[in-house]
Amino acid sequence: MPLLAASMLCAPAMAQDAKVGRAKASAQCAVCHGQNGVAQMPTAANLAGQQELYLVKALEDFRSGKRENEMMTVVAKGLSDADIANLAAWFASIPVTVQPLP
Amino acid sequence: MPLLAASMLCAPAMAQDAKVGRAKASAQCAVCHGQNGVAQMPTAANLAGQQELYLVKALEDFRSGKRENEMMTVVAKGLSDADIANLAAWFASIPVTVQPLP
Repeated sequence: MPLLAASMLCAPAMAQDAKVGRAKASAQCAVCHGQNGVAQMPTAANLAGQQELYLVKALEDFRSGKRENEMMTVVAKGLSDADIANLAAWFASIPVTVQPLP
Repeated sequence: MPLLAASMLCAPAMAQDAKVGRAKASAQCAVCHGQNGVAQMPTAANLAGQQELYLVKALEDFRSGKRENEMMTVVAKGLSDADIANLAAWFASIPVTVQPLP
């Protein structure tokens, strides 16, 4: 079953659940990053439609202390690997349209 | 002139020029982050419409070594304060629409 084998190779190491991530984000992220991933304060990042792998690395780095931020260092400490996978899946899934450049 | 004084207080420390930033980005950022700020590889961040202050801090942190990334640590080393201001102004200015959430 070469096709099945190939698709399994592409499967993520952990099944991520954007719906679960959305609920978690609503409780823990939305004050700064917005319910829809649009930042509510100028120093916070917009997360809507951000790259999933980038978000996973950002949260892992905040959790490990490799990357520091007054707010995120605190928030990330409490996240499990599943939380990170779900949050990244949620924010990456928010549909964003970039206007064509002139 | 209280109104003028107030507006001067709000002026950025350095005048940023999105057009100059666009030219610089086209040469130095686009391979990974796209001409329009839409990432071309899964580990790079989408930058289109990102918050300007967030981008300034990210570039300053990569330049100082506070934040590390194999690619960005190298690229940011060569950026002046004006480069950072211009690049942040450019990417922040790219119009992005976030779809309403269901």
